Amino acid sequence: MPPASVPWFSGPSLQASQPAVETALGDPVVSASLWAGVAIMGFTTLLFVFLGRDVEDETVRRIFVATIAIPAISTVSYLGLATGLTVAVVEVGGRRIVTTYGRYITWTFSTPMILLAIGLLAGARGSELFAVVVADVAMCLTGLAAAFTESAVWHRWAWFAVSSVFFGVVLYVLLVSMPVAAASRGGAVEDLFDRLKTLTAVLWVGYPVVWVLGTEGLAVVGLGATSVAYTLLDVGAKAVFGYLLLSNTAAHDRVREVAGPARPAAAVDD
Amino acid sequence: MPPASVPWFSGPSLQASQPAVETALGDPVVSASLWAGVAIMGFTTLLFVFLGRDVEDETVRRIFVATIAIPAISTVSYLGLATGLTVAVVEVGGRRIVTTYGRYITWTFSTPMILLAIGLLAGARGSELFAVVVADVAMCLTGLAAAFTESAVWHRWAWFAVSSVFFGVVLYVLLVSMPVAAASRGGAVEDLFDRLKTLTAVLWVGYPVVWVLGTEGLAVVGLGATSVAYTLLDVGAKAVFGYLLLSNTAAHDRVREVAGPARPAAAVDD
Amino acid sequence: MPPASVPWFSGPSLQASQPAVETALGDPVVSASLWAGVAIMGFTTLLFVFLGRDVEDETVRRIFVATIAIPAISTVSYLGLATGLTVAVVEVGGRRIVTTYGRYITWTFSTPMILLAIGLLAGARGSELFAVVVADVAMCLTGLAAAFTESAVWHRWAWFAVSSVFFGVVLYVLLVSMPVAAASRGGAVEDLFDRLKTLTAVLWVGYPVVWVLGTEGLAVVGLGATSVAYTLLDVGAKAVFGYLLLSNTAAHDRVREVAGPARPAAAVDD
Repeated sequence: MPPASVPWFSGPSLQASQPAVETALGDPVVSASLWAGVAIMGFTTLLFVFLGRDVEDETVRRIFVATIAIPAISTVSYLGLATGLTVAVVEVGGRRIVTTYGRYITWTFSTPMILLAIGLLAGARGSELFAVVVADVAMCLTGLAAAFTESAVWHRWAWFAVSSVFFGVVLYVLLVSMPVAAASRGGAVEDLFDRLKTLTAVLWVGYPVVWVLGTEGLAVVGLGATSVAYTLLDVGAKAVFGYLLLSNTAAHDRVREVAGPARPAAAVDD
Repeated sequence: MPPASVPWFSGPSLQASQPAVETALGDPVVSASLWAGVAIMGFTTLLFVFLGRDVEDETVRRIFVATIAIPAISTVSYLGLATGLTVAVVEVGGRRIVTTYGRYITWTFSTPMILLAIGLLAGARGSELFAVVVADVAMCLTGLAAAFTESAVWHRWAWFAVSSVFFGVVLYVLLVSMPVAAASRGGAVEDLFDRLKTLTAVLWVGYPVVWVLGTEGLAVVGLGATSVAYTLLDVGAKAVFGYLLLSNTAAHDRVREVAGPARPAAAVDD
Repeated sequence: MPPASVPWFSGPSLQASQPAVETALGDPVVSASLWAGVAIMGFTTLLFVFLGRDVEDETVRRIFVATIAIPAISTVSYLGLATGLTVAVVEVGGRRIVTTYGRYITWTFSTPMILLAIGLLAGARGSELFAVVVADVAMCLTGLAAAFTESAVWHRWAWFAVSSVFFGVVLYVLLVSMPVAAASRGGAVEDLFDRLKTLTAVLWVGYPVVWVLGTEGLAVVGLGATSVAYTLLDVGAKAVFGYLLLSNTAAHDRVREVAGPARPAAAVDD
């Protein structure tokens, strides 16, 4: 029974030598977009650490930890994609699709950090942070399910639909629920929250659009364009987002209060 | 080396076209029990969201978030099973077993929500919530290990035994430890906790019983009966549990206090 | 397409019957080191539960929950390795490597418990616990990535390097940041923290050293020595660590304060 003795966990890396994955990663545009991701996100991580060198306030420190984690996880993500460890080929409806499924795995860790960082800035309630993180993780893991689905094309779209419902919950908390908390803080905090909220909502909508148009959806555009689009979105939603958040909070260092179970009267001092 | 080039992550969905999995999911009883799970859990999620439309109190909101997450995760679970994404065939001791391993993966996420919801209701200590969630996650992941074990039948039972020990810890916290906290709250909260505690303990004991009698254990009953039994247990332990919890807490909206690191004097107002 | 119908999730256990894994686990030194791990960690778990039988203080209870979880998770880890469920053979640069990848999976759960326990003892800030746990989980998961990498030898070392950077963050928090909090508590707590901190730092440095010298790195030593070395490190970093922590905190039961979002004036009573 030789096929049964194939080590399944050696699979992901064997795929790097699999013709279809090799060809995909051999495309200079795909490869460049992934290694550029490693470089940009690695540099961004170092920059964020530098920005946080003097932070004292506990809430600001938490925002920094969450925000530094974003490009750090993203660096790991791009390294996994660029070396082919988390790239696979699936076959569905007679079509072969190269899926960079590692994205969904690392988004499961990095996107909650984004929501946590912006939620801490807003002074969101514990129940809001809880709801948005649960919905976000469910969104990423159902995206992973879609990526692995070969049984039928409509099964992939069913996962896409379920994932989109969870995304709707995330957007609701971000655009409707959290702004109430942010407004009660007023001043510079509210302004910064509003900018980051809009940036996040707009760019995050870009991800499912790329999915639909890209190789995993309708394949209107090829793998090169899909990969470049994701990298650009990541630069905006992670590096630019984080820079705006950290440079402002580090400069002013006046975001005082943290969302949590026992928040004793938020001291808004703007 | 053609077998080595099989994409391992395409495996789970390729299995949907694998004869044994196809046959299993082709059984109308199995299929109906899984798609019924999708429908019931999807509807339950919507119902719970509706019940929570006016909730104001922060603790009640947290209970709602945890409880809404239960059928939401369960819907995802049943979609994965019904489409064959998280169903596999294992071979152990000369016997082929269809395992719906996706259950163990999603229980890892959904069952902590059940324990969190009931623990928040009881006003359990942080250390109790911590202990019960750790034991619960360990219980689910060792169940997953049992499902994947083909090396020897007794290895499967070793995992079952380890998983049962963790289940014992969960039952201890639920039946011995948490009731102390619930009793100190008294009144309607204590009554509701007692009912939910009994419902949960009784139904949760049903799961290992089904495992032992079902296809993954002694195979006294077939896959159809196993699958129907799990769906019925899920309806009780998730949908009925959640409805009792949420309809009562939403109606009264007087569960005030939350377990957490810094709980300043619980305001029990029953 | 017979290879494609191999159930991927049956893979890990089929490997136990795979010649290379069978040979590896057939080595009496390897096998003894793994089953000894099951026995030692199982016994340690029971001992820790016994030590915690009378603990009252909430912070001490949390330290106990985290610390009891360490050998409990480790018992599960060794059972998975000893039965071959989480052992695989990877092929890289023409060399076949037996990887006990289950270690990285369970370390992802057990090592945060170690850091949490020592952090609670020190009375570390929430932001410190957050940072150290994120870095630690990233360290373990990039170690897992290294274990699965077959695409190139230098890719494995790239993962090792990234994992080491995260390890550096863990060491920084443990040796530079947390001691400040511990010092502010003084007395017996500070002394105990200092001993545990040194024990942890020294032993944890041993793990990457074993990796470099062992079968997954330069293969200076064989699988038997590698496996024995990991078991010895685990006994020190988990069992001895936990015994020192719990026997002292249970005896004195005077570690009062917990790190958390809202810590109202730490009551240091030493």
